[in-house]
Parts: sequence; C-alpha cells; structure tokens
Amino acid sequence: MSALSPISRAACIGGGVIGGGWIARFLLAGIDVKVFDPHPDAQRIVAEVLANAERAYGLLTGAPLPKRGALTFCASVAETVADAQWVQESVPERLDLKRRVLAEIDAAAPADALIGSSTSGLKPTDLQAELTHPGRLFVAHPYNPVYLLPLVEIVGGAATTPETVARAKAVLDAIGMKGVVIAREIEAFVGDRLLEALWREALWLIKDDICDVETLDDVIRYSFGLRWAQMGLFQTYRIAGGEAGMRHFLAQFGPCLQWPWTKLTDVVDLDEALVEKIGAQSDAQAGGLSIRELERIRDENLVGIVQALKAGQGGEGWGAGRLLKAFEQRLWAQAGAAPAADTAAPLELVQTRVSPAWIDYNGHMTEHRYLQVFGDATDALLRLIGVDLAYVEAGHSYYTVETHLRHLDEAKLGEVLTCTTQILGADEKRLHVFHRLCAGPERREIATGEHMLLHVDSKAGRACPAAAPVRAALDVLAQAHAALDRPIVAGRSVGLKAPAPAA
Amino acid sequence: MSALSPISRAACIGGGVIGGGWIARFLLAGIDVKVFDPHPDAQRIVAEVLANAERAYGLLTGAPLPKRGALTFCASVAETVADAQWVQESVPERLDLKRRVLAEIDAAAPADALIGSSTSGLKPTDLQAELTHPGRLFVAHPYNPVYLLPLVEIVGGAATTPETVARAKAVLDAIGMKGVVIAREIEAFVGDRLLEALWREALWLIKDDICDVETLDDVIRYSFGLRWAQMGLFQTYRIAGGEAGMRHFLAQFGPCLQWPWTKLTDVVDLDEALVEKIGAQSDAQAGGLSIRELERIRDENLVGIVQALKAGQGGEGWGAGRLLKAFEQRLWAQAGAAPAADTAAPLELVQTRVSPAWIDYNGHMTEHRYLQVFGDATDALLRLIGVDLAYVEAGHSYYTVETHLRHLDEAKLGEVLTCTTQILGADEKRLHVFHRLCAGPERREIATGEHMLLHVDSKAGRACPAAAPVRAALDVLAQAHAALDRPIVAGRSVGLKAPAPAA
Repeated sequence: MSALSPISRAACIGGGVIGGGWIARFLLAGIDVKVFDPHPDAQRIVAEVLANAERAYGLLTGAPLPKRGALTFCASVAETVADAQWVQESVPERLDLKRRVLAEIDAAAPADALIGSSTSGLKPTDLQAELTHPGRLFVAHPYNPVYLLPLVEIVGGAATTPETVARAKAVLDAIGMKGVVIAREIEAFVGDRLLEALWREALWLIKDDICDVETLDDVIRYSFGLRWAQMGLFQTYRIAGGEAGMRHFLAQFGPCLQWPWTKLTDVVDLDEALVEKIGAQSDAQAGGLSIRELERIRDENLVGIVQALKAGQGGEGWGAGRLLKAFEQRLWAQAGAAPAADTAAPLELVQTRVSPAWIDYNGHMTEHRYLQVFGDATDALLRLIGVDLAYVEAGHSYYTVETHLRHLDEAKLGEVLTCTTQILGADEKRLHVFHRLCAGPERREIATGEHMLLHVDSKAGRACPAAAPVRAALDVLAQAHAALDRPIVAGRSVGLKAPAPAA
Repeated sequence: MSALSPISRAACIGGGVIGGGWIARFLLAGIDVKVFDPHPDAQRIVAEVLANAERAYGLLTGAPLPKRGALTFCASVAETVADAQWVQESVPERLDLKRRVLAEIDAAAPADALIGSSTSGLKPTDLQAELTHPGRLFVAHPYNPVYLLPLVEIVGGAATTPETVARAKAVLDAIGMKGVVIAREIEAFVGDRLLEALWREALWLIKDDICDVETLDDVIRYSFGLRWAQMGLFQTYRIAGGEAGMRHFLAQFGPCLQWPWTKLTDVVDLDEALVEKIGAQSDAQAGGLSIRELERIRDENLVGIVQALKAGQGGEGWGAGRLLKAFEQRLWAQAGAAPAADTAAPLELVQTRVSPAWIDYNGHMTEHRYLQVFGDATDALLRLIGVDLAYVEAGHSYYTVETHLRHLDEAKLGEVLTCTTQILGADEKRLHVFHRLCAGPERREIATGEHMLLHVDSKAGRACPAAAPVRAALDVLAQAHAALDRPIVAGRSVGLKAPAPAA
C-alpha cells in the first residue's frame, strides 16, 4: 500500500482524455493501474496524456512524489478489475453501454472494490439499477485536464451506501484531488448544470451575432473567470453585497430575475450553419496555435494560477492552492521516512524542474529563482537534521544571514535541476552550507550558492544555540562532509579585484 | 495631458463600489477626476475603495505609475462635468433615473466629451433616446473589483457613432483596461447574460437542495473557474475536442442540448425562504471572515493570478497577464523620460511593496524575493545607462555572474520597500553594484546586495565590451559615485572565519 493513499491497485476501463487523466492521477500517487480500452490507439493516447500529466505535475510541485505506480494494459474487463480496489469507468456517454460495462465490472471485481463512473450527466441510480452489488457504485465526475483540475463530484444513487461515498472521498482527498459530495442526484449534477446553462446562453449570443467566440471568451477571462478561479459565485456576490452581505445582494438583484436577461426559455438549434459559424470563429481565435500548443499554454497557466493561490490568505493558501499545499505537506511527511542520507558525497536533497513562472523574457530562468531552489535545498537539509514544522512552530529556526551566488550557465523551461549540498562548517549557532545546482540529465553546473545560517529564537528575535538533537544530527553530517573536497570557490567575495570571470 | 492616457480630465457621477472603482482607475492613470454623488457617505466610500485600489495596484505592479490625478468632489452634476473629456455615469440601475442624470450630463458637458454608462443591463439606445448629443453616449460596463478586473464591455446604441466607440476603446486600452466591443446591443450585453443564466440555474440547485452554496462554489473554483481565468468557454472546448477541434466537440456534445440538463425553462421564485436559506448558507461558508477580510483575500488572489498569467506562454504573457505586461511596458517607456538622476547620493530606482506572494509561512518576506527586488533595481540601473529593450533585442545585455546578500531584518506584507543603488566600479565589460534595501517609512535597513555583472553578446554567449553610449553613461555615474562613501561591507565573503553576525 502506498504511504500516501489508502489504495494501491486501481483499474481504469476506458483510456481516452478523461480515462487517461484518471490513470495519470493514480500512477502519480504511487497506485498501480490496470487499463482496458479496446480502441486501437488506446496505448498511444494514454501515453500522450501521461506525458502531459507528468510534465504539468512536475511543474506544479517540487514535493517528493511517491514512486510512480505500474501501468498494465489488459485484454478484458474481467482481467483488468480482478484485484482492483477502485475501478473507474470512463466509456462513452451512453446509458446502455455504461450499464453493460458496469455489469461486467460488478461481476469480476472483488466484492469490496469501489466502482466510480466518470459520467458527466447520467444518474447513478440508473447506472446501478442492474448491478448485483449496487451499493459500491457512485459517480466520480472529474474535469479536464483531470491531472491538474482537482475537482471530482461524488454522487451516490438510491442504492449507494454512505460508506461507499465516504471511502471514495477519502481516496480522492488522499491523492490530492478535491472530492465534493453532491447531496442529491440530478442529471448533470452541479458543475455541468451550471456549465450547460451558460453554454446554452453562449450559443444564442453567437447565433444572434451579439459577439463572436473570441469576444465572448475575452468577456469571461478578463472578468468573472479571474474571480471564479479563487471564489465561486456566492462568495463573490457576498462581497459585492458589501457590509450588508448576501441578503442585501439578493434583495438588490432579485428583481433582475423577472427581466428578460437570458434566452433560456428556449433552446438554440445547433444546426450545421451554427456549427460552421462557431468552428470558423474558433479557428480565427486560435491564431494558428495547435491544440497541443494550446494545451501546453493552458496547463502552464493552470500551474501558475494554483501556485499563486498557494500563497493566498497570507501564505496559508486559498482554494486549489491550499489543497495543493496540504497535499505537499503530506508528501513531505511521507518522504521523511526516506533512507538515511549517504554522507560520502554532498547530499542530493532537491530535484525539480524549471517552471514556466521562472522564465524571463529572454527564455532563461530568472535570477532570483536560483536562490529559491537553493532555499528549498537549505529547507530540505534543515528537515534532515530535525528542524521540521514542529521545531519551527515551537519557536526555533535557522535564518539565512548571508549568501554568495555564482552564475555559470543558463537553465531553460522544463529542464530538470539537481541541487547537491555540502556542509562547510557548523557550530552551536551557525551553519555554513554550499549548494551546487546542475541542469539537465548531463548535470551541467549552472550555479553555486554559499550560505551562512544562524540558529534563532524566533519569538525573542535573537540568535541562540540549536537544540541538542539538531546539533547532534548536524555534527554527524558536518564531520562526514569535512572529509570531502572543499569547493575552491568557497569564501570568495564579489569585487573588481578578482580576475574577470571567463567569457 | 497624461503621457499615458489620451485624456487628462474625467468626471464620475455616482461614487459607490462601481463608481469608486472607476475613480480609482482614472486617478491611478494620472487623470484628474471630479466626482458628484449626493450620498452623505460618498466621500468615505470613495476613500475606502481608493485605499483598496491603491493597495492592490501597488501589489499588482512595480512599474512606475504616473503621478496620481487630483480628486475633487463637486456640488452638482453640471459643475462636475463642465470640463470633462470622459464622463462616467454609475447611478442606480433605473432607466428613468439614468435618463434624467444623462440628460443633465449631456446639457453641461463639452460637446466632444465621451459619456459612458456603467449600466449592467439597460440598452444604450434606451439611455440615449432623449439626449441632445446622443452620438457620444455608450455603455462602458466594468466588473467588480473595477480596479483589478480589466474588462469593460463597450456597447453602442442606435445613435452612437463609430468614432465614439473607437475613442472609448482607445482610452480604456491606454489606462490598462480591456475594452471589448460588443457587436449588437441586447439587454445585459454578454457578460451578464452568461452570469444570469448560470445564476438562475444555481438558484434552482440551492432551492432543490442538490447542494449548498459552499459546495456549489467549490465546484466552480476547483474546476472550470480555474480554466476560465485564462481561457474562456470556446477555447477550452476547442482543446477538449482534441485534434479534431471545435467542430468535433460540437458534434459530440450537441445532443446534450436536447437533454433535461438545466431547469431554465422556468425561473425560480426568489421568495423570503430562499433568500434566508442562501443567506444562512453563505454565513456558514464565510467561516467568520468579514467582508473586508474576504475582499482583501480576493484582491490578493487576483493579483497573484494575473501575475502568474504574466509569465504565461513562455514568458510572453497570456490574457490578463499579457495585458498587464503591455501596460507595464508603456509605463516604463514613459518613465524613461524622467528627470536626470541625482548623482550626489546612491540612486533610488525602485520603490515597491511586499506582495502577498512574497510571504512565507512565517509571515516574512521569502529569501529569494530580496534578490528579485535587487534584480529589479539592477534592471532599472541598466535602463538608466541605455540598456533598454531595443539594446537587449539587438543582442547585448549585462548578465549577473556573482552576488553577495546580507539579511539584516525582516519585511512584512504590504510594507513599502525602497532600494538604493551605488556603483562601486565599472570597466568596459564589468559592472560592480551595491544595493541597499530599506523597509517602511522609517527606512529600516533590511538587506544589502552586492553584484558583479558582465556585458555579453547574448547570441555568441560570451563577454564583450559595452557599446560606447552605454559606457559613457555608466562612466558619468561611476565617477560621481566614486566620491560617495564605499559600503564597509563591500567585498565581504561568507565564512565561519568572519565574526558571528550580531544576534
């Protein structure tokens, strides 16, 4: 069993964009996944989604992911689900097809396996009607891209047991997703209800030439789209209501409901002419960017947005960023049980990738991001000697008082960065460390960082000796590292007296 | 006339949350604003919105804003609009009231003044019906918070001239907003049409107990809200359609239009019971956070999201972030014409604020953000000596090769940071600078940065002498700074041999 997740074996029936997203989520959480998809290109499609997912996930978090689960393609539904703890069905959106596939799953899966359906609209009561064990069937409706958007709507049908819903939510929460339980089943649940209402209105606006698709998209992404990335509809309106709050807002805007402000008393006819109109406008909007390019831009934007939200609410994190932060804390916690460090060489404590937000207009990694990676490496070293969250919360920590950086080469977007750390010296209050940052699989040296840290009583705001266990752990490392070659550039200062750096 | 904007005098009739947002946008763009609002608390409300706007804007961008415009409260509509180039009407949403106020504006404003209405739903043809000069009336519909969300829907009525629409868009674009022209007028335009459709569906979901308001908000902000902050509805679905694109997507999802996926064939009755239900659920969702606290969290989140989007598309910027980036470039360009630097003291090139994204879990400014501010100061120095965008694009630049940082004190969220810069030395290829970072109005010294930069041929990837005009500008500064006291800590290196830093 993965230390992260309550399950270690999943089965995915259907490996399209949604199924592939589920596969990626499970594998990246350290869960083994068996897949059945009769489509001739299934393995290629899954591989493509997985590649996107790994790239995006690598940019999203530098926390230590568990060892990736094993991926196996199977020849039948029965073989795929035979030992699964969670079976996720993501076949096309037809009730008869889903019922047939779910019956096959139900017959072959262990009796206590959870069975989730990715349906975006069918009611779980209708899906489970003919199962032998209907109690473990539920809807688990995710959003594309599944590997980045955390939401999963969990919907139970008439026969679904409360235990099933609770177990499903626990698994989703454990692997970094946001399981939201919908109280009562209804076609299309909550998200697609909202999307469908807006979508129908949007089709009218295009059909009636009020605007084109690019204008409509701009209206969304320069206004309420920005709002909804962090607060939803009601919380946003609560603020709009001002001090008087929600009830005031409703009183003020309630009358609009009687105004002719939507065309939704009628449904647009999506005929050939309208399809072609939207298709042509969408082509123009894309401005020559391919689906693959748009996908990459979208993923990098989503990464940046979630990382921005991680800094929300005074650093506590907000919404999807807070979720990520909590997930990373669990990842770090489980990484704490890592094997003892090899002390015969500098420590390799941080491996990360150059994130899109780290790139400047020259396409290079921005200067201060080097210091960010060195800071992460210092934090990892501190955790290793026992300066963990509990130690810091109890009022002690190490603060950096001095830093010396050398820049030797450039790093590019997406490159793997590896940081090695050597302790140059330590006493009861001070810690002198040297980091070396390398890029790419060839480990090209791109920068070094030399730092002096001071152990402090953070409440009193002054230096004090480190706790005995921390000093002991530090001494072991410092003594081992004393045997290593000292970097020849250690102790170097900035100045024109030094020879000019090599061109 | 402000160098930034084609207008320098605006009038705002109505100073509530929306009117106050307009006032802030104009003032921060260097435009003088006269205000009329008969509400007894108008001055207090405007001051509050302005304070929020200045705080948020200061966090959003470190680019040099023009000198803030002058704010004047007037006693009548006529006095307010007498010399205005743009009049913005933001009075309550009643056709009779708006018509009366617009007639007053029309009678007293200069004949070539633009008149925008903030209405969120009334048709401009209805608003302009009784004006003497109806051709200059248009809808300019912004979104709350107006000082952060860039969108303004520009809607002309039957009598609005194309020149009016073009002039309005030019002003909005110049001050950093996103003017989007709606092709045909319709009640509620585009944004509020979409919002209203979704809102009506949402009210049904709450009334029918499918979910509560917190669940509904979570469904939005953990899924499509994140998508819509950067791409709208159609671009998102284009990607979902995969390689086959938009037409494929429409073919696949078109049939859903016939399914009972919304309740919008009917309108919910927002009776007292439903208002109370939503009010109570909204109170629970807020978890004790006041409107002011939520507002601040929202603003900081929006700042972080827009800044994240500024790094999108490989550093070119995407959506609202690209808009900000282009605006900042114009701000920097106009700041280029600033008076010559005083060389009798270290240069004061950067003043900024501690942004929410810069804060770590201890509530302090994160280490690498110090280097970011020093990097900004170095960039400002380089622009001052002629290393501007054109110089860099022509293939030459200065790269930092070495840095020495000292941390002396902490900075807190929102504190003003001032960075002073002294040139310690320079030759044909090298530039040795020393930055001192101070926090708060008392200019508490919190850090120093000493840097060696090398002038490079960025295509060849090697050092080369700087261009003659750059060297000349640099020499003038370097000679003046040679007369200043040299920082005693310059040339210092990291090491345990040095005395322990003061506790």
